[in-house]
Amino acid sequence: MGQVMDGDRLWIDGLKFDDRGLIPAIAQDAGDGAVLMMAWMNRESIEQTLATGEAHYWSRSRQELWHKGATSGHIQRVKGLAYDCDGDTILMQIEQVGDVACHTGARSCFFTSVPASVFDGRG
Amino acid sequence: MGQVMDGDRLWIDGLKFDDRGLIPAIAQDAGDGAVLMMAWMNRESIEQTLATGEAHYWSRSRQELWHKGATSGHIQRVKGLAYDCDGDTILMQIEQVGDVACHTGARSCFFTSVPASVFDGRG
Repeated sequence: MGQVMDGDRLWIDGLKFDDRGLIPAIAQDAGDGAVLMMAWMNRESIEQTLATGEAHYWSRSRQELWHKGATSGHIQRVKGLAYDCDGDTILMQIEQVGDVACHTGARSCFFTSVPASVFDGRG
Repeated sequence: MGQVMDGDRLWIDGLKFDDRGLIPAIAQDAGDGAVLMMAWMNRESIEQTLATGEAHYWSRSRQELWHKGATSGHIQRVKGLAYDCDGDTILMQIEQVGDVACHTGARSCFFTSVPASVFDGRG
């Protein structure tokens, strides 16, 4: 497909990384829109994500580049990547291999909800 | 509906706020699943959100409680709230009044995408 032009990466320069060099990245299922997880990326993980088409994050606990699914097999194939109006959050559309994003074995990390009755009659 | 029991708030104690007392909160459209925005909440804004059924965040720039839509009219009616496996991210299902979540007038803050061709042939 030819050389990746430097211009293809200029948008990364416009992102706002925090004082740890990190930016939050939301992973959403490209098929049904379920929000699967949120984790942190740094520049290196963004570049690896673009280079491979598979989501790479930065593990804050292990302080290392984290190729999601490298151990579990639960790779995330990136179909799209967007960022928000002030450039401080990333949103990816992914295909989740194995349909499991969470280390607990759940499809999505967001499996604990406040009871709906909390919001009944309000708003 | 009676008094809100202290037990209804215990889950907030289990959340992981960062060293600024903040937790990221994703707002997703309850109707079609579009991810509209991500902003930060603190304990006070979570409590106000539960009390009113309308999303309240913490404005880092203004250093104050932020009732989303109080000025613009673009209130977010919360239909559901979940948190992730390690309690450090919130995900809300909302009805967006005016169908505009972004201060730019866009429906979603995530209106800037990397070209899809970046991911063609990869992953």
